[in-house]
Amino acid sequence: MTNKFPQRSHCPINYALESFGDKWTLLIIRDLMFNDKQSYGDFLASGEKISTNILADRLKRLEELGIVTKGAQAPNRSKVAYSLTQKGRDLLPIMLEITRWSGKYDADTYASRSFLMRLEQDRDKLIAAIRAGW
Amino acid sequence: MTNKFPQRSHCPINYALESFGDKWTLLIIRDLMFNDKQSYGDFLASGEKISTNILADRLKRLEELGIVTKGAQAPNRSKVAYSLTQKGRDLLPIMLEITRWSGKYDADTYASRSFLMRLEQDRDKLIAAIRAGW
Repeated sequence: MTNKFPQRSHCPINYALESFGDKWTLLIIRDLMFNDKQSYGDFLASGEKISTNILADRLKRLEELGIVTKGAQAPNRSKVAYSLTQKGRDLLPIMLEITRWSGKYDADTYASRSFLMRLEQDRDKLIAAIRAGW
Repeated sequence: MTNKFPQRSHCPINYALESFGDKWTLLIIRDLMFNDKQSYGDFLASGEKISTNILADRLKRLEELGIVTKGAQAPNRSKVAYSLTQKGRDLLPIMLEITRWSGKYDADTYASRSFLMRLEQDRDKLIAAIRAGW
């Protein structure tokens, strides 16, 4: 049986890196998860200035990995709506722990003090609240 | 003031990606955090077969970012002992959430069922136990 994504190892850290170990993929996940973005054009407009070819490549890969799913194809591909699958939504605790770490160490972080406080004080409740909105 | 590491943005997800958004860095963190590895040779011996030039580059960057610190230089550089700083150790919750996600979605995961169970049932206690050993 051939495997489209041969793994270097099945170490859980490695599995994750094979899925999103690059400089861009988690930004797309972030936009889908927290920023209410869903179209090609939405992702392109984000502050980090992802290029069209990297975006197309990463979205395709995320679909193949079952992390993102694509709505019905519209005539204009900028109108296709992407969304997170359950596997994608299950990245939430990772994203929140990343936010906590960056909030602690990046003096110029965009993360609001109130969000970081909520995360520090009751992470599980915050996760439940976000999930309730899905 | 020039900044050696200009950020694409101060989004907390982006900050983390600028620190470890590649296919290798978290494997080095993993080896330091969970596998009791500390030397150049130790990291090279890991299953994913990191190359010497990538390893040297990532270790240098991790030092510059204050995530890893290097012990006294021995005559043979393979004997230099690296260790995690507090900033590095604070990656623990991220590493554990990654383990949980991969443990759920990688059918061939190396993560043991007992470890995943512990993580699922009492994550905070597990974190405290690991920290107590540092």
